[in-house]
Amino acid sequence: MTSDNTATGSVGVVHPQTARFTAPLTLRSGAVLCGYELVYETYGALNADRSNAVLVCHALNASHHVAGHHAGDPGNTGWWDNMIGPGKPLDTNRFFVIGVNNLGGCHGSTGPSSINPDTGLPWGGDFPVVTVEDWVDAQARLADHLGIERFAAVMGGSLGAMQALAWSIRYPQRLRHSVVIACAPNLSAQNIAFNEVARQAILTDPDFHGGNYQLQNAVPKRGLRVARMVGHITYLSDDEMANKFGRQLKHGKPGYGFDTEFEIESYLRHQGNKFADYFDANTYLRITRALDYFDPAFASGGDLSAALKDVTADLLVVSFTTDWRFSPERSREIVRALLDNRARVTYAEIDAPHGHDAFLLDDPRYHRLVAAYFDRVAAETVAEVQA
Amino acid sequence: MTSDNTATGSVGVVHPQTARFTAPLTLRSGAVLCGYELVYETYGALNADRSNAVLVCHALNASHHVAGHHAGDPGNTGWWDNMIGPGKPLDTNRFFVIGVNNLGGCHGSTGPSSINPDTGLPWGGDFPVVTVEDWVDAQARLADHLGIERFAAVMGGSLGAMQALAWSIRYPQRLRHSVVIACAPNLSAQNIAFNEVARQAILTDPDFHGGNYQLQNAVPKRGLRVARMVGHITYLSDDEMANKFGRQLKHGKPGYGFDTEFEIESYLRHQGNKFADYFDANTYLRITRALDYFDPAFASGGDLSAALKDVTADLLVVSFTTDWRFSPERSREIVRALLDNRARVTYAEIDAPHGHDAFLLDDPRYHRLVAAYFDRVAAETVAEVQA
Repeated sequence: MTSDNTATGSVGVVHPQTARFTAPLTLRSGAVLCGYELVYETYGALNADRSNAVLVCHALNASHHVAGHHAGDPGNTGWWDNMIGPGKPLDTNRFFVIGVNNLGGCHGSTGPSSINPDTGLPWGGDFPVVTVEDWVDAQARLADHLGIERFAAVMGGSLGAMQALAWSIRYPQRLRHSVVIACAPNLSAQNIAFNEVARQAILTDPDFHGGNYQLQNAVPKRGLRVARMVGHITYLSDDEMANKFGRQLKHGKPGYGFDTEFEIESYLRHQGNKFADYFDANTYLRITRALDYFDPAFASGGDLSAALKDVTADLLVVSFTTDWRFSPERSREIVRALLDNRARVTYAEIDAPHGHDAFLLDDPRYHRLVAAYFDRVAAETVAEVQA
Repeated sequence: MTSDNTATGSVGVVHPQTARFTAPLTLRSGAVLCGYELVYETYGALNADRSNAVLVCHALNASHHVAGHHAGDPGNTGWWDNMIGPGKPLDTNRFFVIGVNNLGGCHGSTGPSSINPDTGLPWGGDFPVVTVEDWVDAQARLADHLGIERFAAVMGGSLGAMQALAWSIRYPQRLRHSVVIACAPNLSAQNIAFNEVARQAILTDPDFHGGNYQLQNAVPKRGLRVARMVGHITYLSDDEMANKFGRQLKHGKPGYGFDTEFEIESYLRHQGNKFADYFDANTYLRITRALDYFDPAFASGGDLSAALKDVTADLLVVSFTTDWRFSPERSREIVRALLDNRARVTYAEIDAPHGHDAFLLDDPRYHRLVAAYFDRVAAETVAEVQA
């Protein structure tokens, strides 16, 4: 689904597609979705034996639009465009890459803004809570739909990495590699606390109306704005924030009021406003809950090694030194549990100043590492085809 | 103002008093307060030469009620009752201790809930922004009122420590010692960011009414609640939160909804609700702004050593290893700048797991240190009297 644009390393103009699934999907909560749609994009070409597909899972606020741009909207490049394209670390000249908007999302896939067939009204607050495992199950059906029996790799950063890890646990035979970047095996109490502040800001916004704001022609923008602001604090390292904004005053001297005084305030307000204009509150609530609930070791009483015992994929685990949301120590928990199971795991801790957001940036060492890893994946894929 | 209660180490029943000041006070912002009241408490007895007074400055949400309890309300002990009392680290058998509610506060001193004499209505949003320096100036007048020329010590933790530091800069001749606990020479961009999230939650609460909510019989509780929740995350260390709450589910298993699922959520909601019931939103806004603005080195282009050049007090600087709000590194900046000026400074970094809140807890090593320091202060005081 790409136009020719290799000169710039971009996949060029891309076209979202929709897959409709009619078989009921039972969610972790016990709720059953009778049917649903997933919006997705693909880049590069699926090879003859369908062995070069890479699924890219999105994190909190992203979508199926991973690379390239939509026709007539060249500024709206995909969220991981620096990683994915011809000649890029995940090279679309070699791999067939799929981005998908998760169930419960607000970018086209079935979610709280969709029509509930039982009522003919938007789902709103009645849309069920979805989990990382539910997303993976829905993605597996998309793989079936695309005729992909086994992915060369499933890849993601942050919450996307949790999906890549869940794939390796839940469908061990359906992926050769799992690329797990800036991840944690579960949220810490502090991580949950930040999510809870964001949720309370939304849930207590008078425009939230118990999640049924669409019917009231309202949008809980105030809550979304605060939720996004608190999120952004956790995406940047303390040092990066100091370097970027420090104590810089917007007007050079204090104004002794509550308008924007410091540059950091200006940045946070801007991010909050932007987010409140495009993101859906019900989706945000559900995505943060999916983060909270993710805990593969829960079923084995906290034993992560036991939780990972059936993993057969090779794994690349990447962390960033200044990531205080999901610190390297949390990634090492995953690595240790994999090693307990004699899994084939490559671990890299990238010395980068940017905090959690580093996974989205084009740090050369980070990108060279991912490129090298996918060279290996590509070599195996070719070897497999030739064998 | 204490009843006899040495058996329990409590100062016993204490009585808030009010001092009224009629001389205008010019604030840093240029605004002038024509008159104001300060509510304060005292514990122990002022000695004959008035040399044993210790001023204790409060942090964000505290007040003049530092130790003991009010008549008929034995459960409402002062916020630093474990530190101050007969036989305690700051021993009221030796020192005359003063707690004062700061200007702009909501515990009795003149603040946004007070009547603006120009209008006959509550100040509300029109109450000026106050700074750490304004507080210190107002406290100096209270010292005059009490006949205290020079304090044996000014002491505080967190924002209270900023006041103790400001005292040593602004009134070097009026204190012998400054006790600066869990402090920073200014807020980092990340610190300001957390304050800004809290403020935006309040400012955008529809019940805020531009700060004039009293006239509308409204209270911006939703905003206060979120503000307090985000604050609490920064008071506890990540590890302490993990130890206290971990991923513990309130009902043992996930409920797949947005009610309280995790113990940490329950804790934060409880703290938020409690705070929204008693604290004033306009005060909270002003106190967080006072924190943002505090930056003694601003006038000297960021040179903290230059800012501290007139300090003559001895200083005790204390930090806590797991305090990520004001980390030990920030305290060491203060110590280094003091040493540049050959000031007499004692620095201790206490290995404590509790994060920023450690300054309020009765960690034995911490309390022994403060007790030992005040032994020295007491010995000097006595020596001075005898000389």
